[in-house]
Amino acid sequence: MKLRRSERMVVISNYLINNPYQLTNLNTFASQYEAAKSSISEDIAIIKKAFEERHIGEIETVTGASGGVIFTPSIAKEEALAIVEDLCDKLSESDRILPGGYLYLTDLLSTPAILQNVGRIIANAFKGEKIDAVMTVATKGVPLANAVANVLNVPFVIVRRDLKITEGSTVSVNYVSGSSDRIEKMFLSKRSLKPGSRVLIVDDFLKGGGTVTGMMGLLDEFDSELVGVAVFAENAKTEKMDVSYKSLLKVSELDVKNSQVSVETGNIFD
Amino acid sequence: MKLRRSERMVVISNYLINNPYQLTNLNTFASQYEAAKSSISEDIAIIKKAFEERHIGEIETVTGASGGVIFTPSIAKEEALAIVEDLCDKLSESDRILPGGYLYLTDLLSTPAILQNVGRIIANAFKGEKIDAVMTVATKGVPLANAVANVLNVPFVIVRRDLKITEGSTVSVNYVSGSSDRIEKMFLSKRSLKPGSRVLIVDDFLKGGGTVTGMMGLLDEFDSELVGVAVFAENAKTEKMDVSYKSLLKVSELDVKNSQVSVETGNIFD
Repeated sequence: MKLRRSERMVVISNYLINNPYQLTNLNTFASQYEAAKSSISEDIAIIKKAFEERHIGEIETVTGASGGVIFTPSIAKEEALAIVEDLCDKLSESDRILPGGYLYLTDLLSTPAILQNVGRIIANAFKGEKIDAVMTVATKGVPLANAVANVLNVPFVIVRRDLKITEGSTVSVNYVSGSSDRIEKMFLSKRSLKPGSRVLIVDDFLKGGGTVTGMMGLLDEFDSELVGVAVFAENAKTEKMDVSYKSLLKVSELDVKNSQVSVETGNIFD
Repeated sequence: MKLRRSERMVVISNYLINNPYQLTNLNTFASQYEAAKSSISEDIAIIKKAFEERHIGEIETVTGASGGVIFTPSIAKEEALAIVEDLCDKLSESDRILPGGYLYLTDLLSTPAILQNVGRIIANAFKGEKIDAVMTVATKGVPLANAVANVLNVPFVIVRRDLKITEGSTVSVNYVSGSSDRIEKMFLSKRSLKPGSRVLIVDDFLKGGGTVTGMMGLLDEFDSELVGVAVFAENAKTEKMDVSYKSLLKVSELDVKNSQVSVETGNIFD
């Protein structure tokens, strides 16, 4: 279908936004929109400028016959900070405190607009790293891992705390459950992660680090490599973990008795 | 920041794609990009034409002082059919058959590009309906509900089969588990769904319908209303459910002994 330049730019932008981290040959666009490759190159140059000026992302051109363009989403530091500060305010609402010293996060981690922004911020913090998959543990980590995987355009892998027949053969490891100090088991379907994968671990809340250490044990079992760990929120009062991690939010105080919670930005901007 | 028209169209397109089903006043764009409102109107007209020609979605203009534009994503029937036919092929791979007559779906439901397309197809099937939330049951339904909620720009609600302390107070209902014919319980956090919500139920696999019926019971408990039910795949051999549903895929035959599985397109295109 032949399109005018302005329309072409709209549909090429749409394509790139929906296909991040993917190499697309300019001939694909040229034949699809019945335009000369040189015209497409000019379109891309304008889109690139607009994307970069508005911090939507970068467009890289790979030259050669098998070359093309790759869109890498990004986010401006000021925008990311504003998003995290807004989350700090939301997390500081006293009615989030649950008996036992837990914080209710589910509403935030089930709102697409928030998840999308959090996904952009976490993915941006690992830009430049080769990542094959995003790993998390069911259930609360799933939407977060999904959001990061969307931006990186890679699959996500869900570790389970129970055995499901619909997962086929699994590999299991033991881990120390932070909330109960008991030894428990976590399971990963054998088919869900290729050996030799480079994996980003994502979780909703970091307390003792037992769950993350368990997932790292699974990575060993799958001959896979840890790229990094990112969490939505961390509890500042917990013992320091051996492994480094990036957090969006840090819960510095949680006083159940007086219904007081203090939240600050995490270390992701350090 | 002042932008050229071509650049402005790229960033406005990006904004609309990332903020579906949301009314945005043209003055917002005008002040952000330092352009006259009439210029923004012209930009929108071009974007609208491109979006409609390429079946990316519709742009509706709401007139008046509190008016603006709303982007509703859509998908062309041919594109949707091609996606579902590709999924039929993938689901027909004999190595997906698990002991007990289950099909391994996890790889498909953890690939962002597939989820995004499935989300577009399901959301498109309920276009025109007012939907406040998407409901599913943990764990397998979560990425699917997330994908549909992304397109509809509404929160998703996760029903659980176990009780978690991090969810606060919950409401529970009994349901008949299709796989075991036993009565089990499902739980929903009291905070996660506002009374009077209009809800779309989404699940990965429809067998006996017990899980869906359970979720409908929860909707009653939350004084909420069912908009519809959509599933990724249904088992054709199951008893017909009382409630109508839309399915993307229909597993018409699953022969464990001979490792044979036949999959056809579901009723979503009927």
